[in-house]
Amino acid sequence: MAQADFIQSVRINPEKDKLIVLDQTLLPLETKFIELVTVEEVWDAIKKLKVRGAPAIGIAAAYGLYIAVKDLMTADFSSFYAEFTEKSDYLASSRPTAVNLFWALRRMKERVLQEQAKPLAEIKRALLGEAEAIRNEDEMVCKSIGEHSLALLRPGMGLLTHCNAGGIATARYGTALAPMHLGQERGYNFKVYADETRPLLQGSRLTAWELMTAGIDVTLICDNMASIVMSEGKINAVLVGCDRVAANGDTANKIGTSGVAILAKEYGIPFYVHAPLSTIDLSTKTGAEIEIEQRNADEITCGFGRQTAPMGVKVYNPCFDVTKAKYITAIITEKGVVYPDFAEGLKRLFT
Amino acid sequence: MAQADFIQSVRINPEKDKLIVLDQTLLPLETKFIELVTVEEVWDAIKKLKVRGAPAIGIAAAYGLYIAVKDLMTADFSSFYAEFTEKSDYLASSRPTAVNLFWALRRMKERVLQEQAKPLAEIKRALLGEAEAIRNEDEMVCKSIGEHSLALLRPGMGLLTHCNAGGIATARYGTALAPMHLGQERGYNFKVYADETRPLLQGSRLTAWELMTAGIDVTLICDNMASIVMSEGKINAVLVGCDRVAANGDTANKIGTSGVAILAKEYGIPFYVHAPLSTIDLSTKTGAEIEIEQRNADEITCGFGRQTAPMGVKVYNPCFDVTKAKYITAIITEKGVVYPDFAEGLKRLFT
Repeated sequence: MAQADFIQSVRINPEKDKLIVLDQTLLPLETKFIELVTVEEVWDAIKKLKVRGAPAIGIAAAYGLYIAVKDLMTADFSSFYAEFTEKSDYLASSRPTAVNLFWALRRMKERVLQEQAKPLAEIKRALLGEAEAIRNEDEMVCKSIGEHSLALLRPGMGLLTHCNAGGIATARYGTALAPMHLGQERGYNFKVYADETRPLLQGSRLTAWELMTAGIDVTLICDNMASIVMSEGKINAVLVGCDRVAANGDTANKIGTSGVAILAKEYGIPFYVHAPLSTIDLSTKTGAEIEIEQRNADEITCGFGRQTAPMGVKVYNPCFDVTKAKYITAIITEKGVVYPDFAEGLKRLFT
Repeated sequence: MAQADFIQSVRINPEKDKLIVLDQTLLPLETKFIELVTVEEVWDAIKKLKVRGAPAIGIAAAYGLYIAVKDLMTADFSSFYAEFTEKSDYLASSRPTAVNLFWALRRMKERVLQEQAKPLAEIKRALLGEAEAIRNEDEMVCKSIGEHSLALLRPGMGLLTHCNAGGIATARYGTALAPMHLGQERGYNFKVYADETRPLLQGSRLTAWELMTAGIDVTLICDNMASIVMSEGKINAVLVGCDRVAANGDTANKIGTSGVAILAKEYGIPFYVHAPLSTIDLSTKTGAEIEIEQRNADEITCGFGRQTAPMGVKVYNPCFDVTKAKYITAIITEKGVVYPDFAEGLKRLFT
């Protein structure tokens, strides 16, 4: 795939007046980009999960806030700032659990305060610059993670991944999928196996689609087939993303990750966690401190258009699980690769 | 649940002229028994998977063959036998890969030849008796497996199972589910976790339904949640059935079983295989000799009533996997429990 035509799930148009967003709710059947002109449309796209993935949501919110204020004609900064704050609060309400959303909006606010002495036109240009910086920094983080990860891999390898830590969730490249995209640009010919990732099937709906679209050789399997593909020698490394890494290396990620890690260890296959520094939380000592969210039963009993379990059956539906550090071969960050003892290595990243 | 009202998935009515079959294709949403009066209806029920599970198919075929010939008024044995053979061949064509189907029809044929000197009415009675024997022996096998398994368990335990090795696939009790049903009769209050078992969801459609119907405490999980429920101490034993056990104890069973076994070993949880002697194949030396069937891609890409993966994505869909003997705590048969070294113990079962 040529470098020019990669899929950007969130971008601003050349005239800088529209946000162009891949509608991820239509995947994998339809690849449709929608144009968002008003802040209400941006709010709606985040709310309805058309934009998903923590970094992509942050980028959309930052651009969305710029679009919301770019045509304001206020008399002074304080009335501009009042409007800015109102739009920012409004965007923040689109998905109240998305940490990156608040983080991006806070960066925009800091920037506007920093520029307050300047003329309105310059403040607006600064806000556009800040949104672009948020996007570009995310791409650099992902690319750097991808380079460090790719250095651990060899052409032709079989790779297994779980869920979607992909380019469409970020500015570009993704985290766990970054080495696959970079490898593709360099003719690595990886053979990727994607767990479908029940209950929400991010693996089949998103990862399989993203890798196919990039021309990468991908094979879809059910989650319970990870053991057989490993036993048959098809997998040389497991690559996953993460929600949060504790100070000792314990890693919270999509439900099922811990099982894949245990299988990888049993089969002697390296297991790599891809973790931007923003996901490493030294204030969480171990995985035992991470509270595990339960999700709705109907994701399991009635997930894709039909009831597949008895009415009223009890369901246990944890959103993610914690992979213990002892099953992790390395944690790959934009500042380099951390090997055990993770406690030491992770701390060093922040000094 | 009172002993009288257990679910019998295949039975003959008191007047001995109709086969009454639970239509398993309607589960878990509808519990409907259908009455089969003609051999064509029996053929159709097997063909369309209304009857499923190897022992249940054998029982249905034996009763079906009796029903097919019970009203024949032929002049002599040889014309009766010609009709009998034709009906038997017809039933055999309903599901050409079902070993138990042929086995049951062969037993019926041996019986008819054995009785050939007798009057037609007595031959017919003997065939009914043979079909009832096939059914009753299967119930005894299952009950015996259940008793041996139950002896390894304690009241209140948390149990994990995969797929449906249940009563509805057999005359009664099932194999892996037999100790759960027996335990329920005796107030054991097991807490069962059922893997949904992708791609065909036998765990959610059948096991969850069967255990709920029997009043057993069952919780449905996705396959990739086995690791977290084990890590949380919810599981005291894993109970599975099997398709085939090799001479060294390697066991072929529903896809995903080997992964569950590896997790159980890692978490220090006993892993029990429930195996009627008919599934133990000493002529297969190890699991490496067992060929693994691939199934259709659309079971994974389009399984829930709508397309959930990109059109044309490559899929790997093995029907079962092989669990190595080293991950199996014990193999439970109707003749008792076999512990490692399995090669020795399995051989002794047949001497």
